[in-house]
Amino acid sequence: MKAEIIAVGTELLLGNILNTNAQYLSQELALLGYDVYYQSVVGDNFVRVKDCITQAINRSDAVIITGGLGPTPDDLSKEAAAAALGLELFEDEASLKQIENVFKKSGRTMADSNRKQAMFPKENCVIFPNSNGTAPGCAMTAENGSVVILMPGVPYEMKLMFETHAKPFLKRKSDKVIVSTNVHVAGLGESYLTSLIPGFLDQTDPTVSPYCKPGQVTLRVTSSAKTVEEATEKCQDTVNKLTSKLGKNVYGINTPNLETVVVQKLMQHGLKLATAESCTAGKISAAITSVAGASGVFDFGASTYSNEMKQKLLGVRADTLKAFGAVSAETACQMSEGIRKYAGSDLGLSVTGVAGPGQSENKPAGLVYISLSNGEHTWVEKLMVVKAENDREKVRNNTVTAALDLVRRYLDYLPDTLPCETDPESPTPIIPEQFATSMLNK
Amino acid sequence: MKAEIIAVGTELLLGNILNTNAQYLSQELALLGYDVYYQSVVGDNFVRVKDCITQAINRSDAVIITGGLGPTPDDLSKEAAAAALGLELFEDEASLKQIENVFKKSGRTMADSNRKQAMFPKENCVIFPNSNGTAPGCAMTAENGSVVILMPGVPYEMKLMFETHAKPFLKRKSDKVIVSTNVHVAGLGESYLTSLIPGFLDQTDPTVSPYCKPGQVTLRVTSSAKTVEEATEKCQDTVNKLTSKLGKNVYGINTPNLETVVVQKLMQHGLKLATAESCTAGKISAAITSVAGASGVFDFGASTYSNEMKQKLLGVRADTLKAFGAVSAETACQMSEGIRKYAGSDLGLSVTGVAGPGQSENKPAGLVYISLSNGEHTWVEKLMVVKAENDREKVRNNTVTAALDLVRRYLDYLPDTLPCETDPESPTPIIPEQFATSMLNK
Repeated sequence: MKAEIIAVGTELLLGNILNTNAQYLSQELALLGYDVYYQSVVGDNFVRVKDCITQAINRSDAVIITGGLGPTPDDLSKEAAAAALGLELFEDEASLKQIENVFKKSGRTMADSNRKQAMFPKENCVIFPNSNGTAPGCAMTAENGSVVILMPGVPYEMKLMFETHAKPFLKRKSDKVIVSTNVHVAGLGESYLTSLIPGFLDQTDPTVSPYCKPGQVTLRVTSSAKTVEEATEKCQDTVNKLTSKLGKNVYGINTPNLETVVVQKLMQHGLKLATAESCTAGKISAAITSVAGASGVFDFGASTYSNEMKQKLLGVRADTLKAFGAVSAETACQMSEGIRKYAGSDLGLSVTGVAGPGQSENKPAGLVYISLSNGEHTWVEKLMVVKAENDREKVRNNTVTAALDLVRRYLDYLPDTLPCETDPESPTPIIPEQFATSMLNK
Repeated sequence: MKAEIIAVGTELLLGNILNTNAQYLSQELALLGYDVYYQSVVGDNFVRVKDCITQAINRSDAVIITGGLGPTPDDLSKEAAAAALGLELFEDEASLKQIENVFKKSGRTMADSNRKQAMFPKENCVIFPNSNGTAPGCAMTAENGSVVILMPGVPYEMKLMFETHAKPFLKRKSDKVIVSTNVHVAGLGESYLTSLIPGFLDQTDPTVSPYCKPGQVTLRVTSSAKTVEEATEKCQDTVNKLTSKLGKNVYGINTPNLETVVVQKLMQHGLKLATAESCTAGKISAAITSVAGASGVFDFGASTYSNEMKQKLLGVRADTLKAFGAVSAETACQMSEGIRKYAGSDLGLSVTGVAGPGQSENKPAGLVYISLSNGEHTWVEKLMVVKAENDREKVRNNTVTAALDLVRRYLDYLPDTLPCETDPESPTPIIPEQFATSMLNK
């Protein structure tokens, strides 16, 4: 089945807003077994919208249109679609009532202009009610059997309508199902990761596609089949091969994100974590507390940006700062030990680095030390983020991932893979420097 | 002049990546005086790409194509464009040399497949060298005078090529200039803000368009004219009217963001700020330190997530927590005073609130108190963020904006608009509760 997506709206053509609907719908259509051949954006102009729809129904089985269902004269997608399909619009009583109800609920009176939102063809049309707004959508069927689906442009309204109405409708027309499984990997740059799994990205069924976030890569494994079970089985086989090749760098399968994994694992182990951040200055604690329920594992984080505060709160020694600098393995260790003691937590996590622009203490932008302490042992890891000039946020974001992943690996694998280090004065990196550097560069 | 944008790439049709190039190019083309009538996405298929280009040159003066300039057989935009325009491709010696140089620089050998990246028409074609990659772009001119511009799909390479080559090329063809000025407003929801500036959004020259970020709105004022001076003057007149209507809620004109404004103003005043965050747990300190040079105004931030840490580090009193709860004006005041004292800073900023999901201490999700202390006085402000269920991040992000804006207003207007409050035990909100609530809901 061939599909195409048309977004209607001059604000998209002006670049005022980003067309995120097209990405969402493309992903969803792929999972429903539709091949998307085209995405288009056209302005609020009757003739141009109608021409686009006419072209689309002649080459695609399903045409998904977003936007142009509002009450103003500018909103003309439904009118253009009906004209392209040779259908007439009539006031639909049930839809009109529902729109009036939306207004009643919020204590407003419906304007006369909203009546046009209740106009639909009497035949060859299924109406999709809108639970989040005044604009109902619909699916119109053309003479050649192609389907035109109209939905609002507001992402929130569109997504709910797609989920509850358009998706089941399209599913019934499709002859296959598509299943995806996400393998989440931390600590390996995309090119290095790719070199570890030769051939996988060229597979055709299941396909394997990499998606990058700072310091991490998600491999999406996708397969299609007649049944969900068959597609799932094909995916699982590839997922097993990938996880056995990537081993401990895999932090999760189909999980929302790394911070959620870390919070869940801390909960499972009944451990509390405290953070001391220099270059990231709150990004790690913000990530942890983005997970609902984080208060069960997190009491305190400190953004110790100056040397004075590292000394005062964390007890980093003046002679250490003088001898090695604030950005050093030694300082990182004292920070993780200091925050653990101050907060009375089970684990202390610290980061200190040069975010840039420019170097600091004669150390290059991108150099970061990350340390974890559990009261008995302290580990430290060196990170060198390769980045475009002035890209402070890349350094900071990669640091967040590496720090959270250090906690994840500690909880999963200790003492298996982490060489213990008992002397905080001369710590050994838990990952040999050279390897850490090559791994994290992209 | 009419323009349209075509992105070539199956990864876009699969929804693997978001088409940010289309937004960037739409904005840039608008500023160059081009009316963008269509955006399209088409897969890596010769016939479909060629057909799209043929259609485009028949209806637009400029066709901007991104993607499909790589070395693989899948990359066929240039070949399809040449075919659509009836032009033949030849190896261009200068381009080949430049591509070989890119490989030499990185110590690699050029593959034979890269030779096709140096193929261009000998006539009706201007080559755009690529300083960031191996794929040069070009502008081909069709018989009817329409121009087809080809650029790489990688946003980083595309943007540089657009800036240095395509933009000057397109400017020469255009007959007008477009100028935009951004007016940044904090503390007013979009609908309330709109009600304060009746008629402005309906203006046609300059146009005024609102763009929302959490807790803030940017009004983009845009005008076109024969000269930059003329367009700028028209914009300035509207900008003046808007700022006089919105007054102290305007935090900047054409500034990158609120945190940059706050850091710059702290520098100007020679003041240091420390932060104590509960519900945002590091997001405010992370925002401040995203600005290069923030170390001059920021030494320390604390994410005191538990009551114990609020007491231990900030000196919040147990009886206050017991009587009013952690989410209260009283606790917020003691937090801002406590962090100021602990860090030895000029200003202390604190936030405490219910991020949700669900209520806490019988207080609703979305309720936040924000306090600022300068050692002499302490102010507190109540915020009620209206949000979808479970939207922790909306509460946290709106809180960051409101907190930073409190500092901004303090630095701009004190003591003019902030009623001083000297007794931290019974603080008066600096903004009456009802007004604060109505302002910040959307």
